[in-house]
Amino acid sequence: MTYQQLFDFIKAQQSYLCVGLDTDITKIPSHLLAEQDPIFEFNKQIIDATAQFSVAYKPNTAFYESQGAKGWESLEKTIAYLNTYYPSHFTIADAKRGDIGNTSAQYAIAFFEKMNFDSITVAPYMGKDSVEPFLGFSGKWVILLALTSNTGSLNFEELDIVDGGKLYEEVIITSQKWGNENQMMYVLGATKAESLRQIRQIVPHHFLLVPGVGTQGGSLADVSKFGLNKSCGLLVNSSRAIIYASPGVDFAKSAALEAEKIQSEMKKYLNEYL
Amino acid sequence: MTYQQLFDFIKAQQSYLCVGLDTDITKIPSHLLAEQDPIFEFNKQIIDATAQFSVAYKPNTAFYESQGAKGWESLEKTIAYLNTYYPSHFTIADAKRGDIGNTSAQYAIAFFEKMNFDSITVAPYMGKDSVEPFLGFSGKWVILLALTSNTGSLNFEELDIVDGGKLYEEVIITSQKWGNENQMMYVLGATKAESLRQIRQIVPHHFLLVPGVGTQGGSLADVSKFGLNKSCGLLVNSSRAIIYASPGVDFAKSAALEAEKIQSEMKKYLNEYL
Repeated sequence: MTYQQLFDFIKAQQSYLCVGLDTDITKIPSHLLAEQDPIFEFNKQIIDATAQFSVAYKPNTAFYESQGAKGWESLEKTIAYLNTYYPSHFTIADAKRGDIGNTSAQYAIAFFEKMNFDSITVAPYMGKDSVEPFLGFSGKWVILLALTSNTGSLNFEELDIVDGGKLYEEVIITSQKWGNENQMMYVLGATKAESLRQIRQIVPHHFLLVPGVGTQGGSLADVSKFGLNKSCGLLVNSSRAIIYASPGVDFAKSAALEAEKIQSEMKKYLNEYL
Repeated sequence: MTYQQLFDFIKAQQSYLCVGLDTDITKIPSHLLAEQDPIFEFNKQIIDATAQFSVAYKPNTAFYESQGAKGWESLEKTIAYLNTYYPSHFTIADAKRGDIGNTSAQYAIAFFEKMNFDSITVAPYMGKDSVEPFLGFSGKWVILLALTSNTGSLNFEELDIVDGGKLYEEVIITSQKWGNENQMMYVLGATKAESLRQIRQIVPHHFLLVPGVGTQGGSLADVSKFGLNKSCGLLVNSSRAIIYASPGVDFAKSAALEAEKIQSEMKKYLNEYL
Protein backbone atom coordinates (compact mmCIF):
# COMPACT_ATOMS: atom_id res chain seq x y z
CA MET A 1 0.00 0.00 0.00
CA THR A 2 1.32 3.47 -0.84
CA TYR A 3 1.38 6.56 1.37
CA GLN A 4 -1.25 8.20 -0.85
CA GLN A 5 -3.52 5.13 -0.83
CA LEU A 6 -3.41 5.07 2.94
CA PHE A 7 -4.22 8.77 3.20
CA ASP A 8 -7.06 8.42 0.68
CA PHE A 9 -8.54 5.58 2.70
CA ILE A 10 -8.25 7.61 5.90
CA LYS A 11 -10.20 10.43 4.24
CA ALA A 12 -12.83 8.03 2.94
CA GLN A 13 -13.28 6.41 6.34
CA GLN A 14 -12.85 9.66 8.29
CA SER A 15 -10.81 7.57 10.67
CA TYR A 16 -7.22 6.80 11.59
CA LEU A 17 -8.14 3.98 13.93
CA CYS A 18 -6.10 0.80 14.05
CA VAL A 19 -7.72 -2.11 15.86
CA GLY A 20 -5.22 -4.26 17.73
CA LEU A 21 -6.00 -7.96 17.51
CA ASP A 22 -4.30 -9.01 20.77
CA THR A 23 -6.59 -12.00 20.86
CA ASP A 24 -6.14 -13.84 24.15
CA ILE A 25 -7.80 -17.26 24.29
CA THR A 26 -8.43 -16.76 28.04
CA LYS A 27 -10.32 -13.50 27.44
CA ILE A 28 -12.61 -14.19 24.50
CA PRO A 29 -16.29 -14.92 25.14
CA SER A 30 -16.77 -18.48 26.34
CA HIS A 31 -19.40 -19.35 23.75
CA LEU A 32 -16.67 -19.13 21.08
CA LEU A 33 -14.55 -21.84 22.68
CA ALA A 34 -16.74 -24.49 21.05
CA GLU A 35 -15.66 -23.25 17.60
CA GLN A 36 -13.03 -25.15 15.62
CA ASP A 37 -10.73 -22.08 15.73
CA PRO A 38 -12.02 -19.75 18.47
CA ILE A 39 -9.31 -17.12 17.94
CA PHE A 40 -9.99 -16.78 14.22
CA GLU A 41 -13.75 -16.79 14.80
CA PHE A 42 -13.36 -13.98 17.34
CA ASN A 43 -11.13 -11.98 14.98
CA LYS A 44 -13.50 -12.43 12.05
CA GLN A 45 -16.45 -11.12 14.01
CA ILE A 46 -14.42 -8.22 15.45
CA ILE A 47 -13.17 -7.30 11.99
CA ASP A 48 -16.61 -7.45 10.37
CA ALA A 49 -18.06 -5.32 13.16
CA THR A 50 -15.35 -2.64 13.23
CA ALA A 51 -14.16 -2.39 9.60
CA GLN A 52 -16.40 0.56 8.74
CA PHE A 53 -14.85 2.59 11.58
CA SER A 54 -11.20 1.65 11.15
CA VAL A 55 -8.41 1.87 8.59
CA ALA A 56 -5.99 -0.70 9.95
CA TYR A 57 -5.68 -4.00 11.84
CA LYS A 58 -2.73 -5.03 13.95
CA PRO A 59 -2.53 -8.65 15.12
CA ASN A 60 0.06 -9.01 17.86
CA THR A 61 2.05 -12.15 17.08
CA ALA A 62 2.68 -13.06 20.75
CA PHE A 63 -0.96 -13.96 21.32
CA TYR A 64 -0.86 -16.39 18.39
CA GLU A 65 2.52 -17.93 19.19
CA SER A 66 1.36 -18.72 22.71
CA GLN A 67 -1.08 -21.19 21.08
CA GLY A 68 1.69 -22.96 19.15
CA ALA A 69 1.39 -24.02 15.50
CA LYS A 70 -2.40 -23.85 15.79
CA GLY A 71 -2.10 -20.20 16.84
CA TRP A 72 0.12 -19.51 13.86
CA GLU A 73 -2.64 -20.96 11.68
CA SER A 74 -5.15 -18.60 13.31
CA LEU A 75 -2.82 -15.72 12.43
CA GLU A 76 -2.52 -16.91 8.82
CA LYS A 77 -6.30 -17.21 8.55
CA THR A 78 -6.78 -13.75 10.03
CA ILE A 79 -4.46 -11.99 7.59
CA ALA A 80 -5.88 -13.99 4.68
CA TYR A 81 -9.38 -12.91 5.71
CA LEU A 82 -8.30 -9.27 5.87
CA ASN A 83 -6.54 -9.44 2.50
CA THR A 84 -9.56 -11.09 0.87
CA TYR A 85 -12.45 -9.10 2.31
CA TYR A 86 -10.87 -5.82 3.41
CA PRO A 87 -8.04 -5.16 0.95
CA SER A 88 -8.17 -1.39 1.54
CA HIS A 89 -7.37 -1.79 5.21
CA PHE A 90 -3.72 -1.44 6.19
CA THR A 91 -2.36 -4.52 7.97
CA ILE A 92 0.36 -4.52 10.62
CA ALA A 93 2.16 -7.58 11.93
CA ASP A 94 3.01 -6.41 15.43
CA ALA A 95 5.98 -8.72 15.74
CA LYS A 96 8.79 -6.43 16.93
CA ARG A 97 11.35 -8.52 15.08
CA GLY A 98 14.96 -7.58 14.32
CA ASP A 99 18.10 -9.69 13.90
CA ILE A 100 21.24 -9.86 11.77
CA GLY A 101 20.67 -9.39 8.04
CA ASN A 102 20.22 -12.97 6.86
CA THR A 103 17.79 -13.61 9.72
CA SER A 104 15.74 -10.45 9.26
CA ALA A 105 15.43 -11.50 5.61
CA GLN A 106 13.70 -14.67 6.82
CA TYR A 107 11.30 -12.66 8.96
CA ALA A 108 10.55 -10.49 5.93
CA ILE A 109 9.70 -13.63 3.96
CA ALA A 110 7.44 -14.81 6.80
CA PHE A 111 5.41 -11.62 7.13
CA PHE A 112 5.60 -9.98 3.69
CA GLU A 113 5.78 -12.90 1.25
CA LYS A 114 4.16 -15.75 3.11
CA MET A 115 1.35 -13.83 4.83
CA ASN A 116 1.26 -10.63 2.77
CA PHE A 117 1.06 -8.13 5.63
CA ASP A 118 1.46 -4.50 4.55
CA SER A 119 3.86 -3.79 7.40
CA ILE A 120 5.75 -5.15 10.37
CA THR A 121 6.92 -3.55 13.61
CA VAL A 122 10.71 -3.81 13.96
CA ALA A 123 13.00 -3.31 16.97
CA PRO A 124 15.88 -0.94 16.21
CA TYR A 125 18.47 -2.10 18.76
CA MET A 126 20.67 -4.09 16.33
CA GLY A 127 20.87 -1.26 13.79
CA LYS A 128 20.86 -0.81 10.04
CA ASP A 129 21.40 -4.33 8.73
CA SER A 130 18.66 -5.65 11.03
CA VAL A 131 16.13 -3.27 9.45
CA GLU A 132 17.20 -3.10 5.79
CA PRO A 133 16.00 -6.56 4.68
CA PHE A 134 12.43 -5.41 5.41
CA LEU A 135 12.85 -2.32 3.20
CA GLY A 136 13.46 -4.20 -0.04
CA PHE A 137 9.78 -5.00 -0.63
CA SER A 138 7.79 -2.67 -2.84
CA GLY A 139 4.64 -1.34 -1.16
CA LYS A 140 5.64 -2.80 2.22
CA TRP A 141 6.43 -0.85 5.36
CA VAL A 142 8.74 -1.00 8.36
CA ILE A 143 7.26 0.44 11.54
CA LEU A 144 10.29 1.06 13.71
CA LEU A 145 10.02 1.23 17.50
CA ALA A 146 11.00 4.70 18.68
CA LEU A 147 9.31 5.74 21.94
CA THR A 148 6.99 3.10 23.37
CA SER A 149 4.10 3.54 25.79
CA ASN A 150 5.35 1.30 28.60
CA THR A 151 7.17 2.36 31.77
CA GLY A 152 10.32 0.54 30.66
CA SER A 153 10.75 3.14 27.91
CA LEU A 154 12.59 5.17 30.56
CA ASN A 155 15.35 2.56 30.91
CA PHE A 156 16.99 2.95 27.52
CA GLU A 157 14.77 4.73 24.97
CA GLU A 158 14.95 8.00 26.92
CA LEU A 159 18.66 7.92 27.72
CA ASP A 160 20.59 11.01 26.64
CA ILE A 161 23.22 10.38 23.98
CA VAL A 162 26.54 12.25 24.02
CA ASP A 163 26.42 14.96 21.30
CA GLY A 164 22.88 13.92 20.44
CA GLY A 165 19.33 13.76 21.66
CA LYS A 166 17.60 10.96 23.46
CA LEU A 167 18.11 7.43 22.16
CA TYR A 168 14.66 7.31 20.53
CA GLU A 169 15.44 10.56 18.72
CA GLU A 170 18.72 9.09 17.46
CA VAL A 171 16.78 6.07 16.25
CA ILE A 172 14.44 8.32 14.26
CA ILE A 173 17.21 10.54 12.89
CA THR A 174 19.59 7.73 11.93
CA SER A 175 16.94 5.45 10.42
CA GLN A 176 15.77 8.18 8.05
CA LYS A 177 18.95 7.49 6.10
CA TRP A 178 17.77 3.90 5.55
CA GLY A 179 14.32 4.57 4.12
CA ASN A 180 11.82 7.34 3.53
CA GLU A 181 8.28 8.20 4.55
CA ASN A 182 6.88 5.97 1.82
CA GLN A 183 8.23 2.85 3.47
CA MET A 184 8.84 3.68 7.12
CA MET A 185 6.69 4.67 10.08
CA TYR A 186 7.57 5.00 13.75
CA VAL A 187 5.96 3.70 16.94
CA LEU A 188 5.28 6.57 19.33
CA GLY A 189 3.44 5.80 22.55
CA ALA A 190 0.32 7.83 23.28
CA THR A 191 1.29 8.18 26.92
CA LYS A 192 4.03 10.52 25.66
CA ALA A 193 1.73 12.81 23.63
CA GLU A 194 3.76 15.91 24.48
CA SER A 195 6.84 14.32 22.91
CA LEU A 196 4.95 14.20 19.61
CA ARG A 197 5.42 17.94 19.17
CA GLN A 198 9.21 17.62 19.09
CA ILE A 199 9.10 14.42 17.10
CA ARG A 200 7.01 16.11 14.41
CA GLN A 201 9.92 18.50 13.88
CA ILE A 202 12.22 15.57 13.10
CA VAL A 203 9.66 13.63 11.03
CA PRO A 204 7.05 16.07 9.74
CA HIS A 205 5.78 13.81 6.96
CA HIS A 206 6.02 10.27 8.35
CA PHE A 207 3.12 8.23 9.59
CA LEU A 208 3.32 7.42 13.29
CA LEU A 209 1.74 4.35 14.83
CA VAL A 210 0.47 5.36 18.25
CA PRO A 211 -0.42 2.64 20.74
CA GLY A 212 -1.48 3.26 24.30
CA VAL A 213 -4.79 5.06 23.81
CA GLY A 214 -7.46 3.46 25.97
CA THR A 215 -6.38 0.81 28.47
CA GLN A 216 -2.88 2.27 28.74
CA GLY A 217 -4.27 5.75 29.44
CA GLY A 218 -3.22 7.88 26.46
CA SER A 219 -5.43 10.78 25.33
CA LEU A 220 -6.69 10.80 21.74
CA ALA A 221 -7.21 14.56 21.91
CA ASP A 222 -3.56 15.21 22.82
CA VAL A 223 -2.19 12.68 20.35
CA SER A 224 -4.23 14.24 17.55
CA LYS A 225 -3.34 17.80 18.49
CA PHE A 226 0.40 17.14 18.54
CA GLY A 227 0.61 14.35 15.97
CA LEU A 228 -1.65 15.06 12.99
CA ASN A 229 0.02 16.41 9.83
CA LYS A 230 -1.27 17.43 6.39
CA SER A 231 -1.67 13.78 5.34
CA CYS A 232 -3.08 12.75 8.70
CA GLY A 233 0.19 10.98 9.50
CA LEU A 234 -1.29 9.02 12.38
CA LEU A 235 -2.53 5.53 12.98
CA VAL A 236 -3.87 5.35 16.52
CA ASN A 237 -4.19 1.87 17.90
CA SER A 238 -6.67 0.58 20.42
CA SER A 239 -6.68 -3.08 21.34
CA ARG A 240 -8.23 -4.18 24.61
CA ALA A 241 -10.67 -1.26 24.95
CA ILE A 242 -12.31 -2.34 21.68
CA ILE A 243 -11.96 -6.10 21.42
CA TYR A 244 -12.85 -6.77 25.05
CA ALA A 245 -15.55 -4.09 25.31
CA SER A 246 -17.95 -6.85 26.34
CA PRO A 247 -17.22 -10.40 27.54
CA GLY A 248 -20.60 -11.69 26.35
CA VAL A 249 -22.30 -12.82 23.15
CA ASP A 250 -22.65 -9.14 22.20
CA PHE A 251 -18.85 -8.68 22.07
CA ALA A 252 -18.74 -7.73 18.38
CA LYS A 253 -21.57 -5.24 18.73
CA SER A 254 -19.89 -3.69 21.76
CA ALA A 255 -16.58 -3.54 19.89
CA ALA A 256 -18.33 -1.73 17.03
CA LEU A 257 -19.83 0.81 19.41
CA GLU A 258 -16.44 1.45 20.99
CA ALA A 259 -14.77 1.78 17.58
CA GLU A 260 -17.51 4.11 16.38
CA LYS A 261 -17.03 6.31 19.43
CA ILE A 262 -13.33 6.67 18.67
CA GLN A 263 -14.00 7.20 14.96
CA SER A 264 -16.47 10.06 15.64
CA GLU A 265 -13.84 11.77 17.73
CA MET A 266 -11.24 11.23 14.98
CA LYS A 267 -13.58 12.65 12.36
CA LYS A 268 -13.77 15.82 14.44
CA TYR A 269 -9.99 16.13 14.69
CA LEU A 270 -9.51 15.45 10.98
CA ASN A 271 -11.86 18.31 10.16
CA GLU A 272 -10.28 20.54 12.77
CA TYR A 273 -6.58 20.05 11.98
CA LEU A 274 -6.28 19.00 8.32
CA MET B 1 18.38 -25.83 34.07
CA THR B 2 20.52 -24.32 36.83
CA TYR B 3 23.84 -22.50 36.49
CA GLN B 4 25.59 -25.41 38.22
CA GLN B 5 23.92 -28.02 36.02
CA LEU B 6 25.06 -26.16 32.94
CA PHE B 7 28.62 -25.87 34.24
CA ASP B 8 28.68 -29.56 35.19
CA PHE B 9 27.55 -30.51 31.71
CA ILE B 10 30.20 -28.28 30.16
CA LYS B 11 32.86 -30.07 32.22
CA ALA B 12 31.46 -33.46 31.27
CA GLN B 13 31.40 -32.62 27.57
CA GLN B 14 34.61 -30.57 27.67
CA SER B 15 32.78 -28.19 25.40
CA TYR B 16 30.94 -24.89 25.46
CA LEU B 17 29.70 -25.21 21.90
CA CYS B 18 26.19 -24.16 20.98
CA VAL B 19 24.98 -25.35 17.59
CA GLY B 20 22.74 -22.82 15.86
CA LEU B 21 19.85 -24.44 14.02
CA ASP B 22 19.31 -21.70 11.41
CA THR B 23 17.77 -24.28 9.16
CA ASP B 24 17.08 -22.77 5.76
CA ILE B 25 14.92 -24.90 3.48
CA THR B 26 16.83 -23.54 0.46
CA LYS B 27 20.17 -24.67 1.86
CA ILE B 28 19.58 -28.16 3.18
CA PRO B 29 20.70 -31.15 1.11
CA SER B 30 18.27 -31.81 -1.72
CA HIS B 31 17.76 -35.48 -0.89
CA LEU B 32 15.94 -34.38 2.30
CA LEU B 33 13.29 -32.44 0.40
CA ALA B 34 11.41 -35.68 -0.25
CA GLU B 35 10.89 -36.12 3.50
CA GLN B 36 7.55 -35.27 5.07
CA ASP B 37 9.23 -32.57 7.20
CA PRO B 38 12.64 -31.82 5.66
CA ILE B 39 13.57 -29.16 8.23
CA PHE B 40 12.93 -31.42 11.20
CA GLU B 41 14.67 -34.35 9.50
CA PHE B 42 17.71 -32.16 8.88
CA ASN B 43 17.72 -30.93 12.50
CA LYS B 44 17.35 -34.43 13.89
CA GLN B 45 20.35 -35.71 11.95
CA ILE B 46 22.43 -32.63 12.82
CA ILE B 47 21.56 -33.00 16.51
CA ASP B 48 22.33 -36.72 16.61
CA ALA B 49 25.65 -36.14 14.87
CA THR B 50 26.82 -33.19 16.98
CA ALA B 51 25.35 -33.84 20.45
CA GLN B 52 28.50 -35.46 21.82
CA PHE B 53 30.54 -32.35 20.97
CA SER B 54 28.07 -29.67 22.07
CA VAL B 55 26.27 -28.46 25.19
CA ALA B 56 23.51 -26.35 23.64
CA TYR B 57 21.22 -25.96 20.63
CA LYS B 58 19.80 -22.71 19.38
CA PRO B 59 17.03 -22.79 16.78
CA ASN B 60 16.55 -19.37 15.22
CA THR B 61 12.80 -18.77 15.01
CA ALA B 62 12.98 -16.71 11.79
CA PHE B 63 13.91 -19.73 9.72
CA TYR B 64 10.84 -21.60 10.98
CA GLU B 65 8.39 -18.70 10.70
CA SER B 66 9.36 -18.19 7.07
CA GLN B 67 7.74 -21.61 6.43
CA GLY B 68 4.46 -20.59 8.07
CA ALA B 69 2.49 -22.82 10.46
CA LYS B 70 4.29 -25.85 9.04
CA GLY B 71 7.61 -24.26 10.01
CA TRP B 72 6.31 -23.63 13.51
CA GLU B 73 5.51 -27.35 13.70
CA SER B 74 9.08 -28.17 12.67
CA LEU B 75 10.26 -25.94 15.52
CA GLU B 76 7.95 -27.68 17.99
CA LYS B 77 9.15 -31.09 16.85
CA THR B 78 12.79 -29.99 17.12
CA ILE B 79 12.53 -28.77 20.70
CA ALA B 80 10.46 -31.83 21.67
CA TYR B 81 13.17 -34.06 20.19
CA LEU B 82 15.87 -32.23 22.15
CA ASN B 83 13.88 -32.37 25.39
CA THR B 84 13.20 -36.10 24.94
CA TYR B 85 16.56 -37.41 23.76
CA TYR B 86 19.05 -34.78 24.94
CA PRO B 87 17.63 -33.40 28.20
CA SER B 88 21.07 -32.35 29.48
CA HIS B 89 21.61 -30.02 26.54
CA PHE B 90 20.72 -26.38 27.11
CA THR B 91 18.14 -25.09 24.63
CA ILE B 92 17.86 -21.53 23.37
CA ALA B 93 14.95 -20.07 21.43
CA ASP B 94 16.75 -17.42 19.40
CA ALA B 95 13.65 -15.29 19.02
CA LYS B 96 14.83 -11.81 20.07
CA ARG B 97 11.39 -11.00 21.42
CA GLY B 98 10.42 -8.06 23.67
CA ASP B 99 7.21 -6.08 24.04
CA ILE B 100 5.07 -4.47 26.75
CA GLY B 101 4.47 -6.63 29.82
CA ASN B 102 1.23 -8.41 28.93
CA THR B 103 2.64 -9.24 25.49
CA SER B 104 6.02 -10.46 26.71
CA ALA B 105 4.06 -12.70 29.08
CA GLN B 106 2.47 -14.33 26.01
CA TYR B 107 5.88 -14.90 24.44
CA ALA B 108 7.04 -16.47 27.70
CA ILE B 109 4.08 -18.86 27.53
CA ALA B 110 4.94 -19.70 23.91
CA PHE B 111 8.59 -20.52 24.50
CA PHE B 112 8.79 -21.63 28.15
CA GLU B 113 5.44 -23.31 28.80
CA LYS B 114 4.29 -24.47 25.40
CA MET B 115 7.64 -25.58 23.99
CA ASN B 116 9.74 -25.89 27.15
CA PHE B 117 12.87 -24.13 25.94
CA ASP B 118 15.44 -23.46 28.69
CA SER B 119 15.98 -19.91 27.49
CA ILE B 120 15.02 -17.21 25.03
CA THR B 121 16.94 -14.30 23.54
CA VAL B 122 15.27 -10.99 24.37
CA ALA B 123 15.74 -7.49 22.89
CA PRO B 124 16.31 -4.85 25.61
CA TYR B 125 15.09 -1.71 23.82
CA MET B 126 11.70 -1.46 25.57
CA GLY B 127 13.18 -1.83 29.06
CA LYS B 128 12.33 -3.53 32.32
CA ASP B 129 8.68 -4.51 31.90
CA SER B 130 9.46 -6.03 28.50
CA VAL B 131 12.01 -8.39 30.09
CA GLU B 132 10.52 -9.18 33.50
CA PRO B 133 7.72 -11.52 32.38
CA PHE B 134 10.41 -13.94 31.16
CA LEU B 135 12.13 -13.92 34.57
CA GLY B 136 9.22 -15.39 36.51
CA PHE B 137 9.87 -18.98 35.41
CA SER B 138 11.98 -21.18 37.66
CA GLY B 139 14.94 -22.74 35.88
CA LYS B 140 14.39 -20.64 32.76
CA TRP B 141 16.75 -18.02 31.39
CA VAL B 142 16.65 -14.68 29.62
CA ILE B 143 19.52 -14.07 27.23
CA LEU B 144 19.52 -10.33 26.74
CA LEU B 145 21.00 -8.72 23.64
CA ALA B 146 23.92 -6.53 24.64
CA LEU B 147 26.58 -6.18 21.94
CA THR B 148 25.77 -8.07 18.76
CA SER B 149 28.13 -9.27 16.04
CA ASN B 150 26.64 -7.39 13.09
CA THR B 151 27.83 -4.10 11.59
CA GLY B 152 24.60 -2.37 12.68
CA SER B 153 25.73 -2.71 16.30
CA LEU B 154 27.57 0.57 15.70
CA ASN B 155 24.32 2.48 15.08
CA PHE B 156 22.86 2.35 18.57
CA GLU B 157 24.47 -0.33 20.77
CA GLU B 158 27.79 1.49 20.78
CA LEU B 159 26.46 5.01 21.30
CA ASP B 160 27.92 6.86 24.29
CA ILE B 161 25.43 7.67 27.02
CA VAL B 162 25.66 10.95 28.97
CA ASP B 163 27.11 10.19 32.43
CA GLY B 164 27.41 6.54 31.49
CA GLY B 165 29.15 4.06 29.25
CA LYS B 166 28.08 2.79 25.87
CA LEU B 167 24.44 1.80 25.42
CA TYR B 168 25.23 -1.93 25.58
CA GLU B 169 27.08 -1.37 28.86
CA GLU B 170 24.06 0.47 30.26
CA VAL B 171 21.90 -2.47 29.17
CA ILE B 172 24.13 -4.86 31.10
CA ILE B 173 24.42 -2.66 34.19
CA THR B 174 20.73 -1.75 34.41
CA SER B 175 19.40 -5.23 33.70
CA GLN B 176 21.43 -6.72 36.54
CA LYS B 177 18.88 -5.10 38.85
CA TRP B 178 16.15 -7.21 37.21
CA GLY B 179 17.67 -10.66 37.56
CA ASN B 180 20.87 -12.41 38.54
CA GLU B 181 23.42 -14.74 36.95
CA ASN B 182 21.21 -17.75 37.68
CA GLN B 183 18.53 -16.53 35.28
CA MET B 184 20.18 -14.09 32.88
CA MET B 185 22.88 -14.28 30.24
CA TYR B 186 24.00 -11.72 27.69
CA VAL B 187 24.60 -11.87 23.95
CA LEU B 188 28.10 -10.65 23.13
CA GLY B 189 29.26 -10.87 19.52
CA ALA B 190 32.52 -12.70 18.87
CA THR B 191 33.60 -10.08 16.39
CA LYS B 192 34.07 -7.79 19.41
CA ALA B 193 36.28 -10.18 21.41
CA GLU B 194 38.37 -7.34 22.85
CA SER B 195 35.22 -5.84 24.40
CA LEU B 196 34.81 -9.03 26.41
CA ARG B 197 37.66 -7.99 28.69
CA GLN B 198 35.80 -4.87 29.85
CA ILE B 199 32.46 -6.66 29.93
CA ARG B 200 33.89 -9.33 32.22
CA GLN B 201 34.54 -6.55 34.75
CA ILE B 202 30.83 -5.65 34.77
CA VAL B 203 29.56 -9.25 34.69
CA PRO B 204 32.31 -11.51 36.05
CA HIS B 205 30.00 -14.43 36.84
CA HIS B 206 27.34 -14.39 34.11
CA PHE B 207 27.22 -16.73 31.17
CA LEU B 208 27.66 -14.99 27.83
CA LEU B 209 26.21 -16.30 24.59
CA VAL B 210 28.71 -15.53 21.86
CA PRO B 211 27.58 -15.74 18.25
CA GLY B 212 29.71 -14.81 15.28
CA VAL B 213 32.45 -17.43 15.47
CA GLY B 214 32.93 -19.05 12.06
CA THR B 215 31.04 -17.54 9.12
CA GLN B 216 30.93 -14.10 10.73
CA GLY B 217 34.69 -14.14 11.36
CA GLY B 218 35.08 -14.19 15.15
CA SER B 219 38.08 -15.93 16.73
CA LEU B 220 37.44 -18.69 19.24
CA ALA B 221 40.91 -18.19 20.71
CA ASP B 222 40.25 -14.52 21.49
CA VAL B 223 36.72 -15.10 22.75
CA SER B 224 37.96 -17.81 25.10
CA LYS B 225 40.93 -15.78 26.33
CA PHE B 226 38.84 -12.73 27.20
CA GLY B 227 35.55 -14.41 28.05
CA LEU B 228 36.12 -17.59 30.08
CA ASN B 229 35.53 -17.37 33.83
CA LYS B 230 35.81 -19.87 36.70
CA SER B 231 32.51 -21.52 35.70
CA CYS B 232 33.34 -21.37 32.01
CA GLY B 233 30.73 -18.63 31.58
CA LEU B 234 30.63 -18.96 27.81
CA LEU B 235 28.37 -20.55 25.26
CA VAL B 236 29.93 -20.04 21.85
CA ASN B 237 27.56 -20.47 18.97
CA SER B 238 28.33 -21.66 15.48
CA SER B 239 25.51 -22.09 12.99
CA ARG B 240 26.30 -22.10 9.30
CA ALA B 241 29.90 -23.33 9.61
CA ILE B 242 28.60 -26.52 11.22
CA ILE B 243 25.18 -27.22 9.77
CA TYR B 244 26.15 -26.42 6.18
CA ALA B 245 29.63 -27.97 6.37
CA SER B 246 28.62 -30.15 3.42
CA PRO B 247 25.70 -29.77 0.98
CA GLY B 248 25.60 -33.51 0.24
CA VAL B 249 24.30 -36.73 1.76
CA ASP B 250 27.27 -36.63 4.17
CA PHE B 251 26.03 -33.35 5.74
CA ALA B 252 25.59 -34.79 9.24
CA LYS B 253 28.99 -36.48 9.22
CA SER B 254 30.60 -33.23 8.02
CA ALA B 255 28.75 -31.29 10.71
CA ALA B 256 30.07 -33.70 13.33
CA LEU B 257 33.64 -33.27 12.10
CA GLU B 258 33.28 -29.50 12.22
CA ALA B 259 31.76 -29.62 15.72
CA GLU B 260 34.48 -31.98 16.91
CA LYS B 261 37.16 -29.61 15.61
CA ILE B 262 35.68 -26.74 17.62
CA GLN B 263 35.19 -28.96 20.68
CA SER B 264 38.86 -30.07 20.66
CA GLU B 265 39.90 -26.44 20.65
CA MET B 266 37.47 -25.67 23.48
CA LYS B 267 38.81 -28.57 25.52
CA LYS B 268 42.26 -27.03 25.25
CA TYR B 269 41.04 -23.62 26.45
CA LEU B 270 39.05 -25.13 29.32
CA ASN B 271 42.17 -26.85 30.56
CA GLU B 272 44.28 -23.77 30.01
CA TYR B 273 42.07 -21.12 31.64
CA LEU B 274 39.86 -22.83 34.23
